[in-house]
Amino acid sequence: MKYKLYGPTTNKVPWQEGPDAFEGAPVWRYQENPIIGRNPVKNVARIFNSAVLPYEDGFIGVFRGEQTNGIPTIYLGRSEDGIHWDIDEDMIKFVDENGEIFMPQYAYDPRLVQVEDDYYIIWCQDFYGASIGIAKTRDFKTFVRIENPFVPFNRNAVLFPRKIQDKFMLLSRPSDSGHTPFGDIFVSESADMIYWGKHRHVMGPNDKWWQSLKIGGGATPIETSEGWLLLYHGVAGTCNGFVYSIGGAILDLENPSIVKYRCENFLMTPEEWYEERGFVPNVCFPCATVQNTQTGQMAIYYGAADSYVGLAFANTDELIDYIKEHSVVNESDTEIGRR
Amino acid sequence: MKYKLYGPTTNKVPWQEGPDAFEGAPVWRYQENPIIGRNPVKNVARIFNSAVLPYEDGFIGVFRGEQTNGIPTIYLGRSEDGIHWDIDEDMIKFVDENGEIFMPQYAYDPRLVQVEDDYYIIWCQDFYGASIGIAKTRDFKTFVRIENPFVPFNRNAVLFPRKIQDKFMLLSRPSDSGHTPFGDIFVSESADMIYWGKHRHVMGPNDKWWQSLKIGGGATPIETSEGWLLLYHGVAGTCNGFVYSIGGAILDLENPSIVKYRCENFLMTPEEWYEERGFVPNVCFPCATVQNTQTGQMAIYYGAADSYVGLAFANTDELIDYIKEHSVVNESDTEIGRR
Repeated sequence: MKYKLYGPTTNKVPWQEGPDAFEGAPVWRYQENPIIGRNPVKNVARIFNSAVLPYEDGFIGVFRGEQTNGIPTIYLGRSEDGIHWDIDEDMIKFVDENGEIFMPQYAYDPRLVQVEDDYYIIWCQDFYGASIGIAKTRDFKTFVRIENPFVPFNRNAVLFPRKIQDKFMLLSRPSDSGHTPFGDIFVSESADMIYWGKHRHVMGPNDKWWQSLKIGGGATPIETSEGWLLLYHGVAGTCNGFVYSIGGAILDLENPSIVKYRCENFLMTPEEWYEERGFVPNVCFPCATVQNTQTGQMAIYYGAADSYVGLAFANTDELIDYIKEHSVVNESDTEIGRR
Repeated sequence: MKYKLYGPTTNKVPWQEGPDAFEGAPVWRYQENPIIGRNPVKNVARIFNSAVLPYEDGFIGVFRGEQTNGIPTIYLGRSEDGIHWDIDEDMIKFVDENGEIFMPQYAYDPRLVQVEDDYYIIWCQDFYGASIGIAKTRDFKTFVRIENPFVPFNRNAVLFPRKIQDKFMLLSRPSDSGHTPFGDIFVSESADMIYWGKHRHVMGPNDKWWQSLKIGGGATPIETSEGWLLLYHGVAGTCNGFVYSIGGAILDLENPSIVKYRCENFLMTPEEWYEERGFVPNVCFPCATVQNTQTGQMAIYYGAADSYVGLAFANTDELIDYIKEHSVVNESDTEIGRR
């Protein structure tokens, strides 16, 4: 491999060979998509925007389930192959530090990240306004909520999979109380996952049409020899609504507020029926990847049209090369991001 | 006095006797208002939304000055009597921790609070979006910026004048990128003024028309035997724009996310020409008080119509009684404010 990968690995990455040549980015869809269809669980109409990790001999995941009452909440699921998922019928029961039930009023777009001995679930929830909620678990049986990292309004928080200079690092996208026609990615640090500070701007929307309205963190960043490989979402505003594409960037390893490379082209944009049709048409929303750090095979899990879970594949060497070859960065990307 | 007061005091409180009886709240205006008029300093068109403290033998203050280029920044001023102000012609020069000039692109609505040996200036500024900036000084000569406490978007941060359970406590009003047609008050804590957490909701807008759109912190809370006396701004939305009134509440001393009393009536609402006419008509925006903790005489400094500084007076015993007698609190006021 040309570029080294670090962090979580599995030799069971879901995989399907891609085309011999690419018209655009070297990312291709699973032919049997979507991997999670409508009404996947009793009383759950749609599952999408969900995150997974290699775990024990297979995979584990946290799933955004839109209940038939319309309220999103989070479900746990397991899989042997990363494609066929067994999702719990009951939502995850969160507790507070004293073990008392402490449920968010709603919870959506969960991410799942292991840092040292703990697994963290990070989601968007009501905190007198949309903001970020976090829980941790070691056994996927007890899920203890910890302090909300930010006041409202905030969405799309993504935790780095290891501490940097002894600090937890969290990407987030400050937002507003509605559908938010703006959005930049910031990074914040914490010694204890309770108090957060030293916030820095990472990058904002740019003049590339597909990411000109807002951008936000997507999958857990992957540590590589080139920097942190970040798959994120970029949004265009049209006369008929927002269009969510998948973008790629590489952040400085020691100071991830610095963008080293940022691909000017989207890596994926809605074009299949399950991405263009659904509760929110025209959404490809990446929330997780799993990869084999020895082979560079990577599977991307993304929400499609707020209705389905889709799977796509890439070879990390090819993907990193593509991002570097098509990189356009501006000053607000490359600066430290302090004002 | 019926209620004890703690914290900063002066025996030189600006003062003018009030009426024998009140039609509404026991707050009255200085008859010679505004105390700072148009074009108060070279190249500064308007000064308003400014904060002062007793200092040495008189008073010191930080002033929002709207330059003739339209950009707001912060000026230092001094006064012997708290009414007539000598404001520096040059804006405050902020530096970073290394002593290098580190100016915000703009800065407005400063507050000024002493905690232990440091004086803190807290304002709203651009941080890739409107958010909070903070600097500290001991001598009012060197102003060192410290970390921004929050990611955007946030305004109206107000620091408590002492630590509570060994933590700095900061009120703020999360907002959006525009004129923000919503807004609640939150409180956040920090051990070091760098990392902030344990955010709690204090109170939100309510069904009282004058504060039905949004509310935000105003003057530095005053410690009293009844709790923290907070003067805040409450905003109504009308067909012709927002109207900013002054409200009053009393927060629990040890846990200020709990509202003990909240006055259902405004304490002051725009009615004088300098409050109804100006760059932003219909604004009374409290940013500071000075008081004599022995007599209960209190002077309120408020911005008027984003054009002037006004002065009003109250007797704290009367004011606290009025707030208690007209208190209406709901569950979102009295709860701890964690979700």
